Amino acid sequence: MSGFDSNDLLGRPSAWLDASGDENEIVLSSRVRIARNLNGHRFTHNCDNTELEAILGKSLGAARRTRAFARSRYIAMGEISTLDRQLLAERHLVSRDFLHNSASRGVIFTPDEGTSLMINEEDHLRIQGFAAGFDVGGAFRRANDLDDQLAPDVEIAYHERLGFLTACPTNLGTGMRVSVLVHLPGLVHSKEIHKLLESLRKLNHSIRGLFGEGSEVMGNFFQLSNSAALGTPEDVIVKNLREMVVKVIQYERRSRELLFSKAQRLLEDKVWRAYGLLRYARSVNTKEALSLISAVRLGVGAGLVRDVSIQTLNELVVYIQPAHLQKRRGTTMDAQERDVARAECIRDALMKR
Amino acid sequence: MSGFDSNDLLGRPSAWLDASGDENEIVLSSRVRIARNLNGHRFTHNCDNTELEAILGKSLGAARRTRAFARSRYIAMGEISTLDRQLLAERHLVSRDFLHNSASRGVIFTPDEGTSLMINEEDHLRIQGFAAGFDVGGAFRRANDLDDQLAPDVEIAYHERLGFLTACPTNLGTGMRVSVLVHLPGLVHSKEIHKLLESLRKLNHSIRGLFGEGSEVMGNFFQLSNSAALGTPEDVIVKNLREMVVKVIQYERRSRELLFSKAQRLLEDKVWRAYGLLRYARSVNTKEALSLISAVRLGVGAGLVRDVSIQTLNELVVYIQPAHLQKRRGTTMDAQERDVARAECIRDALMKR
Repeated sequence: MSGFDSNDLLGRPSAWLDASGDENEIVLSSRVRIARNLNGHRFTHNCDNTELEAILGKSLGAARRTRAFARSRYIAMGEISTLDRQLLAERHLVSRDFLHNSASRGVIFTPDEGTSLMINEEDHLRIQGFAAGFDVGGAFRRANDLDDQLAPDVEIAYHERLGFLTACPTNLGTGMRVSVLVHLPGLVHSKEIHKLLESLRKLNHSIRGLFGEGSEVMGNFFQLSNSAALGTPEDVIVKNLREMVVKVIQYERRSRELLFSKAQRLLEDKVWRAYGLLRYARSVNTKEALSLISAVRLGVGAGLVRDVSIQTLNELVVYIQPAHLQKRRGTTMDAQERDVARAECIRDALMKR
Repeated sequence: MSGFDSNDLLGRPSAWLDASGDENEIVLSSRVRIARNLNGHRFTHNCDNTELEAILGKSLGAARRTRAFARSRYIAMGEISTLDRQLLAERHLVSRDFLHNSASRGVIFTPDEGTSLMINEEDHLRIQGFAAGFDVGGAFRRANDLDDQLAPDVEIAYHERLGFLTACPTNLGTGMRVSVLVHLPGLVHSKEIHKLLESLRKLNHSIRGLFGEGSEVMGNFFQLSNSAALGTPEDVIVKNLREMVVKVIQYERRSRELLFSKAQRLLEDKVWRAYGLLRYARSVNTKEALSLISAVRLGVGAGLVRDVSIQTLNELVVYIQPAHLQKRRGTTMDAQERDVARAECIRDALMKR
């Protein structure tokens, strides 16, 4: 059932990191997640193994019959190493929840990693659609397509008044979460970020770090998403989030322009120092690396740094994570060794371009 | 009498920075200074202008007849700009004292800047001999040669029991100060420097920063010299200082070896980060620049950094000083502008090799 070789993933970046989409200086990627549960089964956290296996059997059967997964292989969490699970989490293919709970749980995804399905996460089915840059519509189409392809084969729990039933009430209704991964160094430097985040929260959007709920904000990367899925049709959720992001992009652009007009020298220095450190440091932890990548990314956006691409920087955000570093080196490493490997990984990436 | 064009100096480094001498990873240069005063005149600080002019006339007359200065031009401090005076001070050709007192004062030096004579500094005559690297003997020969060439033409104040008379009692006797400019990052990092400096002080040696008395120690560069000139023959002063420096070199070498064996990664990272910052920073103040140069210099000494030479780094220590930066740019600059010019000067120097 397994035969998964995570090294296959290492050689190629996730397609949604390729900076091909709109507004890629600010928006790294767009994502739509749809939560679904099978009728006649308890929610995952209440299931025993037998029931989990039953859900898995039905779900995987349906998934295997979809066009989307015609060339995909199911990866059972229980059959791969902790490091491989972590690798999948770093690529946003599975949630961090899968790191600890693995029995009768797994994931199947398209070769470009743009469409994926987690089975027996918080909900029985977690469908994800990814798109590069600012393309919420594209991400929605991918997720929605898979949802449509799965529907004929599984009976989904649906309530006429409440909509799709989900394990957590915040997902009730559409079961949908739309999110964008944005890079907001301008708003952070100008200290306007707090005001912005506050008003987003008031408008029922939620803000997270690079790796979702509870993860620290590093490198000025933020995940912005809708908070409540109930009572709003899917297309309106997409439209609302899209409009919100358009505004955030405007604010960020204005902040960057202001910063560069008011503190050109200081900013240029900051950008180039970050570039110099990334090119030559021999040891760097994740937090500092992301902060340096952030500064260089700002410099690329401003046309200062020309020999690094946004794509390279996007890929680095994932490649410098612990599991990626360890799989790349083919050995487990402690934090200090990873810092050294991280610096090497970054140097390699910057020298290539 | 003047016609001095400081731009002539900008194009070429002082010969004693060329890293050609012994132990140049640790010792940048050796210097011998001899203080002399003319018989029948008050010390400089007690002279009126007429007397200063008389001393200047006699001294300069004698200097012009020496072989050493056959191709040299006298530079009158009163006839050049403040910036030019500062430039000469940064090259160690005049003391900082000359920045404020300029009337009837001046300097004459050989084209390679290895032998120089200040007239009407603290003493009527201040002879200096410079040599690259650890070559106290070479520096002494240069200074002593000039002393010998001047002697027939001027009557030097000498007391049978006290020796050469000088304005400051610490110079009484031989009037000689021998010093070396050393780079001691190993001893600073290992924190052994304090103990070493303490014991040097007890042994009557004195320790100063890059620019002599009262100047801050930056970039782990120290000037070590003999403190008292009385009661010890010249050759013994030279011998004592040489032996002391041999020990300091041993200590520094051992510290560097220990550091690299105990904290290889940390040190490599420090060295390469410094290199990256020097290659890419857009603004850097003197203190940080010297600290970064120090780290890279340590890396060159350890064979880590191969595409920068010790000579380049030695020259940078002088070239990044304020007057050099301003003369190079052909305009006066405030501190912020100098920081930008300094970063550019360093980038240029590192790209060249």
